[in-house]
Amino acid sequence: MTSNDIPAYMAHVGTAARAAATRMAAAPTAAKNAALRALARRLREAVEALQAANALDLAAARAAGLAEPMVDRLKLTPAAIETVAEGCEQIAAMPDPIGEITGVKRRPSGISVGQMRVPLGVFGMIYESRPNVTIEAASLAIKSGNACVLRGGSEALQSNLALWQLVQAALLDAGLPAEGVQLVETTDRAAVGRLIAMPEYVDVIIPRGGKGLIERIAAEARVPVIKHLDGNCHVYVDAEVDLALALTVTDNAKTQKYSPCNAAESLLVHRAQAAAFLPRIGECFAAKGVEMRCCPDSKALLAGVPGARLVDATEADWATEYLAPIISIKVIDSLDEAIAHVNRHGSHHTDAILTTNHASAMRFLREVDSASVMVNASTRFADGFEYGLGAEIGISTDKFHARGPVGLEGLTSMKWIVLGQGEVRT
Amino acid sequence: MTSNDIPAYMAHVGTAARAAATRMAAAPTAAKNAALRALARRLREAVEALQAANALDLAAARAAGLAEPMVDRLKLTPAAIETVAEGCEQIAAMPDPIGEITGVKRRPSGISVGQMRVPLGVFGMIYESRPNVTIEAASLAIKSGNACVLRGGSEALQSNLALWQLVQAALLDAGLPAEGVQLVETTDRAAVGRLIAMPEYVDVIIPRGGKGLIERIAAEARVPVIKHLDGNCHVYVDAEVDLALALTVTDNAKTQKYSPCNAAESLLVHRAQAAAFLPRIGECFAAKGVEMRCCPDSKALLAGVPGARLVDATEADWATEYLAPIISIKVIDSLDEAIAHVNRHGSHHTDAILTTNHASAMRFLREVDSASVMVNASTRFADGFEYGLGAEIGISTDKFHARGPVGLEGLTSMKWIVLGQGEVRT
Repeated sequence: MTSNDIPAYMAHVGTAARAAATRMAAAPTAAKNAALRALARRLREAVEALQAANALDLAAARAAGLAEPMVDRLKLTPAAIETVAEGCEQIAAMPDPIGEITGVKRRPSGISVGQMRVPLGVFGMIYESRPNVTIEAASLAIKSGNACVLRGGSEALQSNLALWQLVQAALLDAGLPAEGVQLVETTDRAAVGRLIAMPEYVDVIIPRGGKGLIERIAAEARVPVIKHLDGNCHVYVDAEVDLALALTVTDNAKTQKYSPCNAAESLLVHRAQAAAFLPRIGECFAAKGVEMRCCPDSKALLAGVPGARLVDATEADWATEYLAPIISIKVIDSLDEAIAHVNRHGSHHTDAILTTNHASAMRFLREVDSASVMVNASTRFADGFEYGLGAEIGISTDKFHARGPVGLEGLTSMKWIVLGQGEVRT
Repeated sequence: MTSNDIPAYMAHVGTAARAAATRMAAAPTAAKNAALRALARRLREAVEALQAANALDLAAARAAGLAEPMVDRLKLTPAAIETVAEGCEQIAAMPDPIGEITGVKRRPSGISVGQMRVPLGVFGMIYESRPNVTIEAASLAIKSGNACVLRGGSEALQSNLALWQLVQAALLDAGLPAEGVQLVETTDRAAVGRLIAMPEYVDVIIPRGGKGLIERIAAEARVPVIKHLDGNCHVYVDAEVDLALALTVTDNAKTQKYSPCNAAESLLVHRAQAAAFLPRIGECFAAKGVEMRCCPDSKALLAGVPGARLVDATEADWATEYLAPIISIKVIDSLDEAIAHVNRHGSHHTDAILTTNHASAMRFLREVDSASVMVNASTRFADGFEYGLGAEIGISTDKFHARGPVGLEGLTSMKWIVLGQGEVRT
């Protein structure tokens, strides 16, 4: 059912999702895993049909004059389909998070008290372009015992509809409700406005996309949002450091890829290492065409590097996520100043200290208020797969509920359980 | 500083809290415990001064014609002061939740990934009348490494100011920032509107009070809210049950106290036990003057109980939190119906099954979507102290972040930590 009456249509979708959520929550582990394996099989069998649906989206995108990089992100190649199919099998092979009971302890009253992991209920996911997100979100919903309502980009509608049909068939294969995964079938933007304001049907919203979209959703949502805004990640080179390690890690954090949110955007160097370190990393950046936005001290130390593109940093640079071959650089005088700078100008995403000093490492770990804090490792590791979560539905830069890469556990909560033998309160 | 310019005043309070939060987060365990013990000592030394301040509030309340039960809740007796002082010492004796590192595992890339427990930052607490909440909130903030901004009821302002002075002095005794605990010194209601809409200064709001207050705060807040609305708690007497246990527990859940949110408001009885159980619990309720709002089947079975006050239940009764000597009663036909009824009409607070059947107990535990789910125990146990949390800042009926009784851990979050030896992403 689609309809021009968006509130009625979304209420229909929400009602179905809420009803399915009860069955998804109670689903046996074997049924959930069977659905995931059926989905993998159906994806592989449907490569041609999926490409046909995808071709419609690609043709429409090109006709609409979409830039070729955007068209690329829309593509469902056989390799991309195989990757999501393998993802479903990997999630099937993971332990079921639901029903886990922890910390049961006897109390003086005689009752035993512990906690049980349960699904959140229904999550809404709002995303753009890449249709493989449809399968990633659906497979995480199935394994975590949640129902979900998916709203993909209008440019990927035909691809998403084709993928969704496979998801529904796979749910039915395993005796689970097809309504466990809903796809919003209209491209009307009013549907998003409804989706984020139906606490009676949807428990949490997970937006993926540009900062403008996410800020708008966070401002207007009437349910909790697991959101990711900037990734203004720092690398701090401490007073005591292995310079070779610092060069390798700083280079990787900045230049391995420029577009991910976990790429470094700002480099802080302790004054004790600045003269030794900055010219060497400057040569590396110059060779790769990375523009350096410098404080006066770092600019002076980098001035002799051949081919270096040096720019005076403004105050705004310290808070900027470039997602480009640009990095801000600042010489600092102490660990305290480094921690204060990161906490003030950073985006609480991912920050790393490079040091050989144990006390510095432990203070940075404890005092930097970010979702991921690292010692002697590239910020590029901030990722659900690298952390061993098996999958990732998003990265949260909030402190409430889930922080950093959000996998299956982020889609669950812990309820209290009490086991008694007739105890009463006196 | 207080001011007629509420936005400026609240920004001043928020800025001070945010700055103090960094120092509170990094505070050594010994300093936090020293502050708590100093607070206990200062409370005991100040019994007379506190009673003098409290007398001003009591006089004003009586002059304003406040009802005597409300005046009672305002009272800071020597016994009440001793209780909060002991609470501070108990919290000092608890393990420090901050800095706990869990789940560190080596990944194939060579990095080790785990999680570290950290404070949320700054919480805002909005509460009414009882001034001892000021000390409870302050002591939980100190131990959990958070800063907090407290907004008590205007009727308790003099008492709260006197208590707050002791808190600030105790923080300074231990070398911690006095601004770690802020009290809003104005009774202007506009201050509440600002407090809940300053995400730059306040990370989470915890309201305690009437349902109207909490609904208004939840609707208007621009930060997450740990909130508690209704406590429409159920007791379900299963088809297989120890009748003596069922009588004792049902009686306690309903009648031990009528006003707490964890008191039972609805009794579901399986048809197989209805004829045996209902007349006996009906006698108990009749003896205590508890009105019974009945479905037709339960009314018929209770009709012969001398002195029973029987009323036909309406649909609204199934969803009502009475907080009074009233209970709704329904005969149901199956465990499925009981679970569905609780999930549909309940408030996701606390619900109990009374049964001797293991499969029924496990299904109820797993499928009832409430913050606390119990087997063979009184719903009255849903409480932070009874659960062993050592203290309770509130009870959450939401599913996001913290569920049920919220203690120290509910005021923290887990950040990711990565320990490397120079690893880079390839």
